[in-house]
Amino acid sequence: MSLIMYERIGHQNRRPSPFSWRIDYAFAHKGVEVEFRTVRFADVATIRGLSGQDKVPIVVDGDTVIHDSWNITEYLETRFPDRPSLFGGDTGRALTRHLNIWSDITLGAAIRRLIAADFIYCLAPEDRAYYRRSREAQFGCSLEDYCADRERWRREFEATIAPLEQTLTEQAWLAGAEPAYADYVVFSVFQYARLGSPHEILPAGTATRRWRDALVSRFDQLGDRYPGYPEQKDGPDGR
Amino acid sequence: MSLIMYERIGHQNRRPSPFSWRIDYAFAHKGVEVEFRTVRFADVATIRGLSGQDKVPIVVDGDTVIHDSWNITEYLETRFPDRPSLFGGDTGRALTRHLNIWSDITLGAAIRRLIAADFIYCLAPEDRAYYRRSREAQFGCSLEDYCADRERWRREFEATIAPLEQTLTEQAWLAGAEPAYADYVVFSVFQYARLGSPHEILPAGTATRRWRDALVSRFDQLGDRYPGYPEQKDGPDGR
Repeated sequence: MSLIMYERIGHQNRRPSPFSWRIDYAFAHKGVEVEFRTVRFADVATIRGLSGQDKVPIVVDGDTVIHDSWNITEYLETRFPDRPSLFGGDTGRALTRHLNIWSDITLGAAIRRLIAADFIYCLAPEDRAYYRRSREAQFGCSLEDYCADRERWRREFEATIAPLEQTLTEQAWLAGAEPAYADYVVFSVFQYARLGSPHEILPAGTATRRWRDALVSRFDQLGDRYPGYPEQKDGPDGR
Repeated sequence: MSLIMYERIGHQNRRPSPFSWRIDYAFAHKGVEVEFRTVRFADVATIRGLSGQDKVPIVVDGDTVIHDSWNITEYLETRFPDRPSLFGGDTGRALTRHLNIWSDITLGAAIRRLIAADFIYCLAPEDRAYYRRSREAQFGCSLEDYCADRERWRREFEATIAPLEQTLTEQAWLAGAEPAYADYVVFSVFQYARLGSPHEILPAGTATRRWRDALVSRFDQLGDRYPGYPEQKDGPDGR
């Protein structure tokens, strides 16, 4: 019986969640089959019914239900020890955990300033009011005001990723000669930007762009499995 | 014959350089004896004569001369393979390299804004004019102006280290259950702040403070081997 992964779905089969992407890549890296099941973005009741909490992805393996993308990753590493390692040993695991935290706290925040106002159009029209309400409460301002000073947030983003750019100039992958979860977790946040906004945030010719595009292509073009950003910002904007 | 390490010396035997500290800890971790030799901060001619370039530390092992702290670390790892690993394998090495780059580009810049004007008093009086001239040319303003908006730089520093604080809440060391070079390289920048300024930048009770203090104590109080910040800002200020 294959494992089941529940993930949020956006407008017309879009999948912009960074937390799902990192687990998609973890499954592909391990070569483990998984059945994907979708829940609507605002469908918190279903998510809570499955796991007793609000966040996706959730992975179900027989009687075991795991939530939180890091827990899922550690579970897969332990459950499939004979498949390629996601961490490359104990030190690799500890340093990958730190990079995971950096990706969510620092990189995620820098990218959100660039895409939060565009992101709403990736979601199904009926989920947009929920997104706007919950994010505007979190940000303390409108989505549009949150992203308004684009030049400033662009400069801060560039400063944030300067170490990544330097590392990827020296080595092909963050994890070294071959990609591992350290790459997937950072990539997942760039994938959220790539699918959640019409703007390309990584200039052509940079090492980070080369790395990101190589990860999009990896595992039979896994990063392009679902539709990209909608060509038209159609439907209500959640106000 | 033991290895020799050349490092810069400050006022009355002070050693504030982060690049030397990370290598001091690497030697201690490997349990390899080293003879320390000092060069004055502004004595670029001696440094160039040894290695054909301007930076310290420099390590000499018989006929081999190695400069650049990362190169030295990789050299020690290869030269002493039976001693405890600095990296914990290939993935650990690649992720440690990234953390090294982050420490220098991002953490180093955030800390420099808090200490650059104080730092001059760690240096021997005869080296202060060199420090002021070279740094002010780099910053495009006086040392004092560079650090003037302390509240802003304090907030930016706190945002910069937020992922470290979270990681060190979850695990004892960045490298996991035991410290490794990933810890030493990040620590070295905090050590530069600790010895290069009278201000404590890590509040008591934080995980990062607990971790830093544990590293100061490690290897027989290695982090306290040399004098701390001078009690009085004596002598000329390099103007």
